[in-house]
Amino acid sequence: MPKSITPPDAARPMRERILDAAETLLRRHGPAKTTVSDVARALQMSHANIYRHFESKAALQDAVAERWLDAVSAPLEAFVTKKGPAAKRLEGWVLALAKAKRRKILDDPELFAAYHAVAEAARDVVEHHLATLVRQVTTIIVDGVKQGEFKVKDAAQAARAVLSATVRFHHPHLVRASGGADTDSDIKAVMKLVIAGLKAGAA
Amino acid sequence: MPKSITPPDAARPMRERILDAAETLLRRHGPAKTTVSDVARALQMSHANIYRHFESKAALQDAVAERWLDAVSAPLEAFVTKKGPAAKRLEGWVLALAKAKRRKILDDPELFAAYHAVAEAARDVVEHHLATLVRQVTTIIVDGVKQGEFKVKDAAQAARAVLSATVRFHHPHLVRASGGADTDSDIKAVMKLVIAGLKAGAA
Repeated sequence: MPKSITPPDAARPMRERILDAAETLLRRHGPAKTTVSDVARALQMSHANIYRHFESKAALQDAVAERWLDAVSAPLEAFVTKKGPAAKRLEGWVLALAKAKRRKILDDPELFAAYHAVAEAARDVVEHHLATLVRQVTTIIVDGVKQGEFKVKDAAQAARAVLSATVRFHHPHLVRASGGADTDSDIKAVMKLVIAGLKAGAA
Repeated sequence: MPKSITPPDAARPMRERILDAAETLLRRHGPAKTTVSDVARALQMSHANIYRHFESKAALQDAVAERWLDAVSAPLEAFVTKKGPAAKRLEGWVLALAKAKRRKILDDPELFAAYHAVAEAARDVVEHHLATLVRQVTTIIVDGVKQGEFKVKDAAQAARAVLSATVRFHHPHLVRASGGADTDSDIKAVMKLVIAGLKAGAA
């Protein structure tokens, strides 16, 4: 099958089909007005079938938020696993994160508004996402130390400082408020400072 | 007169008394429900007297926002003018800014909510405030270059990068959302990276 053809709905795992339907309804009606019954109706299946996959409306909404956030963090894994100078990988990671957030937030504002309301209630999912980001950056920094590029005592602490220093470019509220006005060169200006700091052993 | 005694209202310049009254009313009723008539009534004076100082309700609200923001930036000037290592002054400046924002936002949430609504409409005032912050940081960085501490080509660009890298600690939305959870040691961790970057000539 050529790569560009989306598999027909029926070929997708049921869990994904339920999430697809929930996402469409959330986008259209918002989280308060989207019930498990609505999702079941859209898929022409029983409530019971939904509840086999998600134990509650909250669990279903959490899963939507989780999938949304995983779509941001999963492609970043490439910068974690690939070879090469850690400084370049770290900059690439931040640029890719910022780009993914801009796309998610600015290209699909309806879904973002729905997601944002869901995420407010799904703190565990958001915390898990942030922990994933910290873990990815920590791994890159540890590689940088091994390769003799960075002088860092506590890589996890340094990773948190890197995420703090770049929050302007990946925090949903700030990305939305800026309307994507921050350019890659703004990000690179901050990353130059941050990377020089990691090289100098400031963290 | 002992220093601790506030001068009686009548001793304050009229402009300040009008702003005091407007601030009290904004805090209590919000910007939409606070009119020039309300302010005049609270001060037992005529509209005309208010309009002698502020040409419109918008001008009065802008002045409230401006005073609010000046109360944040004016004390930071001490870090700009004092002698000593630029790195230490820059860290002190960021810590003081973060502290002032925390105090303004968390200690007086009613006024902050009113201010925030006013500031949304007073973009020029906010831009002016941000320009003041950039100017202060630029001056400290220029001193650091003169003193041989920092290697920086474009001090204004470096100053903007420093403000971006610390936005987590001074952006109203993030300060409010964190509820002041970010500590001075979180700020210092970021500033270590930033200052090492300025020393290494990364900006």
